[in-house]
Amino acid sequence: MVDLIKTKRDGGRLGDAEIDWVIDAYTAGAVAEEQMAAFAMAVLLRGLDRTELSRWTAAMIASGDRLDFSGLSRPTADKHSTGGVGDKITLPLAPLVAAFDVAVPQLSGRGLGHTGGTLDKLESIPGWRADLAPDALRAQLADVGAAICAAGADLAPADKRLYALRDTTGTVEAIPLIASSIMSKKIAEGTAALVLDVKFGSGAFLPQRERAEELARTMVELGGDAGVATVALLTDMSVPLGLTAGNAIEVEESVEVLAGGGPADVRELTLALATEMLALAGQLDADVAAALDDGRAMDRWRRMIRAQGGDPDAPLPVARESQQVLADRDGVLAEQDARAVGVAAWRLGAGRARQGDPVQHAAGIRLHAKPGDAVRAGQPLATLLTDDADRIPRAVEALDGAHRIAPAGTEVPARPLIATRIA
Amino acid sequence: MVDLIKTKRDGGRLGDAEIDWVIDAYTAGAVAEEQMAAFAMAVLLRGLDRTELSRWTAAMIASGDRLDFSGLSRPTADKHSTGGVGDKITLPLAPLVAAFDVAVPQLSGRGLGHTGGTLDKLESIPGWRADLAPDALRAQLADVGAAICAAGADLAPADKRLYALRDTTGTVEAIPLIASSIMSKKIAEGTAALVLDVKFGSGAFLPQRERAEELARTMVELGGDAGVATVALLTDMSVPLGLTAGNAIEVEESVEVLAGGGPADVRELTLALATEMLALAGQLDADVAAALDDGRAMDRWRRMIRAQGGDPDAPLPVARESQQVLADRDGVLAEQDARAVGVAAWRLGAGRARQGDPVQHAAGIRLHAKPGDAVRAGQPLATLLTDDADRIPRAVEALDGAHRIAPAGTEVPARPLIATRIA
Repeated sequence: MVDLIKTKRDGGRLGDAEIDWVIDAYTAGAVAEEQMAAFAMAVLLRGLDRTELSRWTAAMIASGDRLDFSGLSRPTADKHSTGGVGDKITLPLAPLVAAFDVAVPQLSGRGLGHTGGTLDKLESIPGWRADLAPDALRAQLADVGAAICAAGADLAPADKRLYALRDTTGTVEAIPLIASSIMSKKIAEGTAALVLDVKFGSGAFLPQRERAEELARTMVELGGDAGVATVALLTDMSVPLGLTAGNAIEVEESVEVLAGGGPADVRELTLALATEMLALAGQLDADVAAALDDGRAMDRWRRMIRAQGGDPDAPLPVARESQQVLADRDGVLAEQDARAVGVAAWRLGAGRARQGDPVQHAAGIRLHAKPGDAVRAGQPLATLLTDDADRIPRAVEALDGAHRIAPAGTEVPARPLIATRIA
Repeated sequence: MVDLIKTKRDGGRLGDAEIDWVIDAYTAGAVAEEQMAAFAMAVLLRGLDRTELSRWTAAMIASGDRLDFSGLSRPTADKHSTGGVGDKITLPLAPLVAAFDVAVPQLSGRGLGHTGGTLDKLESIPGWRADLAPDALRAQLADVGAAICAAGADLAPADKRLYALRDTTGTVEAIPLIASSIMSKKIAEGTAALVLDVKFGSGAFLPQRERAEELARTMVELGGDAGVATVALLTDMSVPLGLTAGNAIEVEESVEVLAGGGPADVRELTLALATEMLALAGQLDADVAAALDDGRAMDRWRRMIRAQGGDPDAPLPVARESQQVLADRDGVLAEQDARAVGVAAWRLGAGRARQGDPVQHAAGIRLHAKPGDAVRAGQPLATLLTDDADRIPRAVEALDGAHRIAPAGTEVPARPLIATRIA
């Protein structure tokens, strides 16, 4: 291992057998954590070329199980988002795509830090369970066509261990390691096609657009190298998606979109991602908007929630405490910082600081204006929701400066939500 | 720690309090090995500036005890070599300098790999003990003026732990970490003046001259920053020093030098280093050659060996097996590769592969010609010495190609042993 660390440290490249050995030995415990930490730092600063990275990703996949949905009578397509504030798109998207008889095996995670987790949101639905055994997942995909569930520990276990190590050693921000971590799990999940929603802007994991674009391009290449048709949309996460950031309130907004309504940006991104997924699955002219407007997507949503024990008609939890944040002047809302809103929602209890901590299902933030909207002094800009009143002051603090109000009449340029497409 | 790793990873610099915290927390076990490994790799690839490195070195010294010889009635001066093949210079040097009433507290290590260790060589003298308690060391310096002994575990313990970590994580070759490792131990030893023998060439730890020079300059700066007058000589280690590489046979050659004889290069370097040490201690015109030629240095040697239980008149161990390596043609010896000779001596049993392994005191290599000497086919170039005949074939293999014989009359340019001086 020392020789391989030195090779990478000095800017050299590793052969296939060397990469396989590193991942196998690390999984088996023969490579120590401190050796992998030094290696990860060398990779962060020296990079991995495309051949190395494809092999690295393949070795991570080979460290565990790989699901196989080739026995299904319909094609599969999946979506992965690099995470943002108010990003509930998976909820309307999976049933929408399933309405076109394309199966969506959406294995998701829980949230950590200021970005929410899809499973945390869905768990606010009374009775809904995140865990599905592989056979139950397959049966649900055959029947309903969509499942959103927890990824098992057997998928890419080397990645799981490596991710935990990177988290404590300052080596998270390596594009090749981020790309292989995401793609090894997604490829191990057995989907035939994959659409990536790679975010940039303050609320994103990689705020710089160039870095996000590099990550997107790297993941699209990795998907292609592994035989999974992959497309990425680069999307703007400088402003929260929609008007809610939390758990139950994001489910509520998702249901609005499934009913043909909802905020324009959530609907726009849902339709764009569904169009990409269906195109990869062979349906180039699907009228996805119609399936939202005529109830077909909603029907799949209700079946999907029920199949996992949830009651789609049950009332969602409501926060015990709330407080409004008011505009301090007349004008036009020029900025609404996604990261600040995400941190505030997290502090209200919607997110967790450590893996395994509980979240409050009713906590979060409702936004009452979006950039470009006219606002008047004293008008509510946001409502903070939580079960613990003592969480409110620090959430208010996080929102300080998040909303910039420009003089009335100021032109606020509309930012395109979808910046570019990488195929 | 994660924030500090990221700062260094991204090319930033650390403040004094941050550096102190890293070393303290690492020593206390609050910074994990994998975190320090990632940090060391970031330092290797991003560097530490002079202010950071001085503080880092000071923090390593502060992690343990610091000896204090200010109570001695004479000044102190020490020497450190970065290690080479046949480098027995400490043996004649310490008593030579002591003959001028400058105390030499030479805390040394054991060898690892192809470079020998000073303590391993001295332990071939019957009865001689490497361990001296601080009080016994102080008493011996007051009485004899020179002591060569094992460094205690209480000097720079953070360095001890960090060095072991770097060894397994591909982070040994970082100039700042090498420099601070050496200098933290040497400064903790309490010497007022320090002369560094920094080697380059095939047998050196850093073969490239530019890298060795960078290390020398860094260490001289660190010494100055810590108030220890420090000078470095950059010396050529492409050819072994003297005509012996091993343990007992290097003691024997050292005694020849102490008797006014010995190989010219060993004598030259001994005199040069002694002159530097004495100059730093305030004696600018010491006639060091006279002290070798008139027996004053030999007298100190005998007292120094006896003070640590050794018998300077006892016969040294003799190897049970030997084999000669012969010249295969007439000509002039053009090259004698130091690394190959070092590896061969190591394989014969003179060195160890792992810390704690025993060494053979009688093992090693006697050289019978030096570059520039005329040789004849069939003449012995080297004699291999070992207690195990079965070690000989792999030692012969290591020597394959180590001696290059050019046609008779070829001009072999003399390489200066001392390339430059850095003060």
